[in-house]
Amino acid sequence: MNIILLTAADFCTSDQAVITNQYRLEHIRNIHNAQTGDRLKLGLLNGHLGQGRILSIDSKQITIGDIVFDRAPPAPLPLTLLLGLPRPKMLKRILQTAATLGVKKIYLINSYRVEKSYWQTPWLTPDAIHEQLILGLEQGCDTHLPEVTLVKRFKPFVEDELPALIKNSRALVAHPYTSHSCPAQTGENLTLAVGPEGGFIPYEVNMLEQCGFEAVHLGERIMRVETAVPYLIGRLYS
Amino acid sequence: MNIILLTAADFCTSDQAVITNQYRLEHIRNIHNAQTGDRLKLGLLNGHLGQGRILSIDSKQITIGDIVFDRAPPAPLPLTLLLGLPRPKMLKRILQTAATLGVKKIYLINSYRVEKSYWQTPWLTPDAIHEQLILGLEQGCDTHLPEVTLVKRFKPFVEDELPALIKNSRALVAHPYTSHSCPAQTGENLTLAVGPEGGFIPYEVNMLEQCGFEAVHLGERIMRVETAVPYLIGRLYS
Repeated sequence: MNIILLTAADFCTSDQAVITNQYRLEHIRNIHNAQTGDRLKLGLLNGHLGQGRILSIDSKQITIGDIVFDRAPPAPLPLTLLLGLPRPKMLKRILQTAATLGVKKIYLINSYRVEKSYWQTPWLTPDAIHEQLILGLEQGCDTHLPEVTLVKRFKPFVEDELPALIKNSRALVAHPYTSHSCPAQTGENLTLAVGPEGGFIPYEVNMLEQCGFEAVHLGERIMRVETAVPYLIGRLYS
Repeated sequence: MNIILLTAADFCTSDQAVITNQYRLEHIRNIHNAQTGDRLKLGLLNGHLGQGRILSIDSKQITIGDIVFDRAPPAPLPLTLLLGLPRPKMLKRILQTAATLGVKKIYLINSYRVEKSYWQTPWLTPDAIHEQLILGLEQGCDTHLPEVTLVKRFKPFVEDELPALIKNSRALVAHPYTSHSCPAQTGENLTLAVGPEGGFIPYEVNMLEQCGFEAVHLGERIMRVETAVPYLIGRLYS
């Protein structure tokens, strides 16, 4: 938590806010060891970055005053991420990581190798997704909430929605069995598809290619999705 | 587990091996759904990649026959990684990730912001480290075990050992508060230092700089170490 994200609901006056969320309270008290008078780095959800000063702090709440938001957050990555729905434990980390790295559009899509039970996890409820995204933004010092879309049917999505979605971007699908290596430092507007554990099946890769995706490999090593996402972002953007 | 790594001890004849490790048994039976007759991708620890065929499989052991090792593993990354000792949960994942990505030399070093208790974790025993590295190699289809060195005292290490260690490499330290951005796609022989959560303190960065390290930033976003490592490797190497 390198910044604390506030929302309008946290404010009691125009420049004072109260934090009662237990996780944050503990983090600010125990990790930051914050005391009355200390400055805190803040962000306004979907707004600017700024700071405030602790007016009072105890085990139940922290009151922050002198709040100003005076700096723009980092530029978003011009990247739309399509991920084969990861298993729940990995999902949490990937949502956090994507938010930290500045991804603003994430599609969690079904695929042949996605276990059906993954769609039942409580980590896919809007509140749970929101929580992981906030943690990722607070880590990355960003304020703009990514948009996460759940896509439970692969084929109609690829046929009916994806063509419009990738229209103004270069579309890549990470796939071990292709001769083209992934481009580097393009900085382009990209749509990047990464399969689930075990990868997309050839039928799915074919469908994505017909839709306009280029299949690109990442070398001989097979990475977990949670490794591939930061690896690819580090590679594609400067 | 995209390959199964065997050691000499697993072999009962020159081309037959027996697996009794419970984790692998379950993975091969339940995730791969492997049956008698199926081919398995194999690797010989610190040797070549190859394959074999399942001769028999039950809940206690798997016997693999017709084993041949006929392909070299991927080239190692010309990268030495110096990491401020991460907290135990993160340590496991980082060791796996580094092994998956082809890092062959890892130094886990003390630093002002490393909590003393982290040095007491059972995940730092040689067996525990070995296990995580094997998991990482099996994910990345690699066979060569990385070498992990624990450095409990920062200052004497940086003063007495590090100069020789970085002699034939370009040395970088990831540090948010510098004006130089991290190079990309250099492919060079590198030594890369990444601080613990909260980063190296200025005194430590100064010491590393005096030793010959260049401080480089990764943009405005602050990443967790487990994110920064694959991000940096994706950025530095093609």
